[in-house]
Amino acid sequence: MKAYKEMSKQELEGLRVEFETAYEAAKAKGMKLDMSRGKPASEQLDFASGILQTVNYENAHIAEDGTDCRNYGGLTGIPEARRLVGELMDVPAANVIVRDNSSLNIMHDVISRSVTHGVMGEPAWKLLDKVKFLCPAPGYDRHFAVTEYYGIEMITVPMTATGPDMDIVEKHVNSDETVKGIWCVPKYSNPQGISYCDETVKRFAALRPAAADFRIFWDDAYVTHHLYEEEDKRDFILEILGECEKAGNPDMVYKFCSFSKISFAGAGISAVASSKANLDYMLGSLFFQTIGPDKLNMLRHAKFFRDLDGINAHMAKHAALSRPKFEMIAEFLTKELGGLGIGTWINPRGGYFVSFDSLPGCAKAIIALLKEAGVVMTPAGATYPYGKDPEDTNIRIAPTFPPLAELVQAMELFVLCVKLASVRKLLAG
Amino acid sequence: MKAYKEMSKQELEGLRVEFETAYEAAKAKGMKLDMSRGKPASEQLDFASGILQTVNYENAHIAEDGTDCRNYGGLTGIPEARRLVGELMDVPAANVIVRDNSSLNIMHDVISRSVTHGVMGEPAWKLLDKVKFLCPAPGYDRHFAVTEYYGIEMITVPMTATGPDMDIVEKHVNSDETVKGIWCVPKYSNPQGISYCDETVKRFAALRPAAADFRIFWDDAYVTHHLYEEEDKRDFILEILGECEKAGNPDMVYKFCSFSKISFAGAGISAVASSKANLDYMLGSLFFQTIGPDKLNMLRHAKFFRDLDGINAHMAKHAALSRPKFEMIAEFLTKELGGLGIGTWINPRGGYFVSFDSLPGCAKAIIALLKEAGVVMTPAGATYPYGKDPEDTNIRIAPTFPPLAELVQAMELFVLCVKLASVRKLLAG
Repeated sequence: MKAYKEMSKQELEGLRVEFETAYEAAKAKGMKLDMSRGKPASEQLDFASGILQTVNYENAHIAEDGTDCRNYGGLTGIPEARRLVGELMDVPAANVIVRDNSSLNIMHDVISRSVTHGVMGEPAWKLLDKVKFLCPAPGYDRHFAVTEYYGIEMITVPMTATGPDMDIVEKHVNSDETVKGIWCVPKYSNPQGISYCDETVKRFAALRPAAADFRIFWDDAYVTHHLYEEEDKRDFILEILGECEKAGNPDMVYKFCSFSKISFAGAGISAVASSKANLDYMLGSLFFQTIGPDKLNMLRHAKFFRDLDGINAHMAKHAALSRPKFEMIAEFLTKELGGLGIGTWINPRGGYFVSFDSLPGCAKAIIALLKEAGVVMTPAGATYPYGKDPEDTNIRIAPTFPPLAELVQAMELFVLCVKLASVRKLLAG
Repeated sequence: MKAYKEMSKQELEGLRVEFETAYEAAKAKGMKLDMSRGKPASEQLDFASGILQTVNYENAHIAEDGTDCRNYGGLTGIPEARRLVGELMDVPAANVIVRDNSSLNIMHDVISRSVTHGVMGEPAWKLLDKVKFLCPAPGYDRHFAVTEYYGIEMITVPMTATGPDMDIVEKHVNSDETVKGIWCVPKYSNPQGISYCDETVKRFAALRPAAADFRIFWDDAYVTHHLYEEEDKRDFILEILGECEKAGNPDMVYKFCSFSKISFAGAGISAVASSKANLDYMLGSLFFQTIGPDKLNMLRHAKFFRDLDGINAHMAKHAALSRPKFEMIAEFLTKELGGLGIGTWINPRGGYFVSFDSLPGCAKAIIALLKEAGVVMTPAGATYPYGKDPEDTNIRIAPTFPPLAELVQAMELFVLCVKLASVRKLLAG
């Protein structure tokens, strides 16, 4: 294949006409597909239907410590749910608070409470002139949205193949006391599918924050979302809570996880793991918000999954369903775009997304073309703070929800839109 | 019976010795009973066990509008749950947002968001020198706790037999722009079981608040918790949303309800009803907190209860179980304390509590005596802002949770403690 950049204006004009004709034909098909979010497919949800059978008979509502899960109380979550989540998060059950849906809710509330009440005795953020968060990008749009909603200044940190650029992270965290947090998706990051290497985790744990109330927001959203049966060594993540404790920073991290992409989205359970001091502080504020969580749903989850082996066996079914979708995309992009010099992408080994980078200044145009032809993708820019991708290149592809056949159609359209937008850009530039 | 106040010192001394002996004997029995909260009894929860059967088979997870309740989305709640709650709250489904457990959570979050972001364009409360709430008292301790947690100044408003003293409410609300809210439990109020009369509701609706962001927090926690089959006219509450709209105050009220005391405490659903403008504003902030609620649990509730008739039939079972407990207390208090002049109480026609007022300065002592003998009641003072009952008289009795036989024992002890504390007080005074 000849790279587009090496083509003459005439050659590019020829391609433009060809692609525009093809695009009009594609548009006429009237596709209708929403790929804007990383949603589980219906079949993935079917795998968990047994969960609804676990707590539907007489006396099935009593937790192992005798708690009647139908009544008030139990702020920390029931013991069997804390143990299950502890296994998943690789931390002791005592370091876990299990909550209802969703981890976003827990993260939001931690931020909100830090604004109104501060963190463990430090001044409430509402009293400070400036509060900043580091935002490795491309990253998760909802993290950035919460941060912006609370008026926190976001500083973009570039991602590398092994995690956020730690030189930049250390520089900001260790010298600037207005830096109060950093968003991390350490495993199969959203959207790039990058897993942090050991050195990255160790450098996180060894931070010497200027702010006493600096916290790492470690969103382990894809902790068990491998696409391949054998978890690759590259994807094994050091356990951050233990690393922070070893490094003398026991209170520096909140670790989050969610069952929204394990059992049911919105009807799962979620959790935060942290030091006892952090959890006690959280419980102190949680008291004002609720008398207790939905313990019946925790019991359902504990009975259905039982332990980490149960979760892993369950997630192998998810992988079997999602893997062909991811592999199709990888093959298709290589076949259609390889050598053209108009895009790069990462083939992830887990998680929920494929991250694609177009020529600079093309992502918005590609998303707009897709939308006009009936395929809604995550808005361009969404993976950057303030929704502003400085180079306008990053596109988040969410392969899990559509059936494979529909996804193939969507990718055909995607590749066409990439080509058309690139040709137009090169001709204009 | 001779009133204690008319007794001679010698007579009182005689009683004191008698009661202290009886108290020591009672203490020796080693009772162990927690009556500190209004918890449903295990049998009440059993009535709802069918709820767990409604969504446990293939394809039972699709809402009437086609929503897969196992996947993301649906911030407002599914249509059938909004309709069900709308019937219960006597408002159109379009004016309802259904959430997960619990109404306390919704109320907390409304306060929290008002502090950080303000109410519909008005300045965030965090920017104001002073924010005040009116607190009809005795009232619900968790309302007061949230208010205090967010640094809001609480002004106690006395309760009358027909609701809060509206002269005082009007004076504060209509003249003081720092007054931003008032807590109301309009039906079978916590703890007195008082239902607001029509005039009270109409005077609420006709308020002319000095603050544009003044809101009535109308916690309809006991909307369907009648103890008697035929709802008495005295307990029929005018619908506040409609009254506010008629009075030209469409945005002045948030109305809350919860299924924690209808289905399962903590595993129920909850809701807020308000004007479209208020709901839209709430959805705008809810977006940052969650991608969607637990729609499966909403579906369970909608399928199990179907409509208001279903809820009423269900609650009749609750009433049949709770009524004998409340009636026993009414009879027992009359028999044991009638004419002694050492306490007054209200026999409610619904709700979850019996409110008892001791001689001034005795409530704390009574609660302490009970605790020492193994019966934990709501702490004295809890029904007042800042936990400070100015006269130290109010005690909240929560009859629903213990089996009747245990409740009888607890009331025997209660009456003894009232007598003992009263005699001691009269001798000391």
